[in-house]
Amino acid sequence: MNQIIHVILPEPTLRRLPWYLAFVDTIAGRGIKTVSSTQISKALNVDASQIAKDLSFLNIKGKTRIGYVVAELQEALSGFLDFKTSHKAFLFGAGSLGRALMADKGLANFGLNIVAAFDIDPEIIGDEISGVKIYSMDALPKLMDEHQAVIAVLTVPAQKAQDAADAAIEAGMKAIWNFTPYRVAVPDEIVLSSTSMYANLALIYNRLNAPSQEQTDCR
Amino acid sequence: MNQIIHVILPEPTLRRLPWYLAFVDTIAGRGIKTVSSTQISKALNVDASQIAKDLSFLNIKGKTRIGYVVAELQEALSGFLDFKTSHKAFLFGAGSLGRALMADKGLANFGLNIVAAFDIDPEIIGDEISGVKIYSMDALPKLMDEHQAVIAVLTVPAQKAQDAADAAIEAGMKAIWNFTPYRVAVPDEIVLSSTSMYANLALIYNRLNAPSQEQTDCR
Repeated sequence: MNQIIHVILPEPTLRRLPWYLAFVDTIAGRGIKTVSSTQISKALNVDASQIAKDLSFLNIKGKTRIGYVVAELQEALSGFLDFKTSHKAFLFGAGSLGRALMADKGLANFGLNIVAAFDIDPEIIGDEISGVKIYSMDALPKLMDEHQAVIAVLTVPAQKAQDAADAAIEAGMKAIWNFTPYRVAVPDEIVLSSTSMYANLALIYNRLNAPSQEQTDCR
Repeated sequence: MNQIIHVILPEPTLRRLPWYLAFVDTIAGRGIKTVSSTQISKALNVDASQIAKDLSFLNIKGKTRIGYVVAELQEALSGFLDFKTSHKAFLFGAGSLGRALMADKGLANFGLNIVAAFDIDPEIIGDEISGVKIYSMDALPKLMDEHQAVIAVLTVPAQKAQDAADAAIEAGMKAIWNFTPYRVAVPDEIVLSSTSMYANLALIYNRLNAPSQEQTDCR
C-alpha cells in the first residue's frame, strides 16, 4: 500500500484527480484490471504526459506495456483525495441550499460530515433536517467544544457571508467552503474554497445567448 | 437602461461578475448609492483596473470622483448575467444530490427552472419532488416536445454521466451542467459547465492536511 503523502498540490492537478478516480471506478466496475495513460487520456481529453505527471505526485508509476493497475490507482487516488476520512463540518444558513446539502447523502461518501447547522431564524432553530440539528449562532462556541469541526459550509444569503465566515474563524474553524456568490475575505492561514453555482449558471447562459458558438467549453 | 449585449466573455470575467453583483446588492441593502472601483477592489480583493475592464464589457463606465451608480450596476449586472430570465432545464438522476437541487428554490432565483427529472429506477418514476415529476428516460423525447428544455443538469452516478449527457444531446438539449466527478465529452456546439463539489472537497482536504500553509487560497 502506498503511504498517503501530504503535499500541497497545484490546484489544476487537484481538479483532475477526481476525474481520474471517477474514471477508474467506472472501468473497475466493468472488470477492467489495467489501464494506460493513453487510454485515460482519450477518455478524459487530458494529455497523457499531464496524467503521468499528476499521478507521479501520488508516487504512482505505470509499467511499460501494461500501464497502471486499476485497483492500485483506485486505492491511491481515493486515499490521497482523503474522501474516505470523515471531516467534521458545520453548516451556516439552513435555507433552501443549506437544507439541500444537509439532505445530500452523497457528500458523506466524499468525507464531509455535517454535524450541526446554524441559522439566525428563530422559527427554525431547534429543527432537525436529515438528522442534523439547527442551532442559534450563540451556540457555536459550545458546539465547537463538543465537535472540533474543521470545515464551515457557507450557505447563508450573500449579504451575510462575511459575517458567517468571521464567526466560524473566530470559533476556531480552519476551512471555509463558500457556496454564496459573495467573495469572502479570510486570513492567510484559513483554507478557502468556493463552489460557484451562480458563476456556472452565468457561464452557461452567456454561452447559450452568445451569437457565435466558437468558445463553448467552460469546464 | 442599457441594452443587454450578448458577447462571449472570458471565463474569468464571468466568474467575477457574480461577485460584483453580490457586492452591489449587499451595499444597496445598506442604502449606499454610489461606489468606486477602488471600493469594490478593496472589498473583493480584485484589481481596480480589472474591475473597470470587466465592467466595460457591460458598457458601464464609472464617473470621475463619483464612481458607479449602484442601482445602474445592479441592473446591468443582473441583466447581463441573465439571472432574471427563466431557463428551462431537465435534471438527470433524481438521487440524493438531484433531489437536493430540485428542492433548492435558490436556483430559480438565478434563472434555472427545472421542469422535469429523469431516472432509471422504476421505484421512483412517477414520484414528485418539490413539484417536479420524475420520468423514465423513455419519456425524454415527449417531454422535449412539450418543454423544449435547454439545460441538462447531470446528477447521475459518475458511471452514468456520459450516457445521460449523450441522451440529453440526442434529444436536442444545448447545454450540460455536470455535477458528477466524471468528465463528460460533448460535441463542440454544446455548452458544458461543471460544478465540481468533489474537486472543492479535494482542495480543502489537501490544504488542511498539508504540513505547510503557504498556499491556502483555492478559490
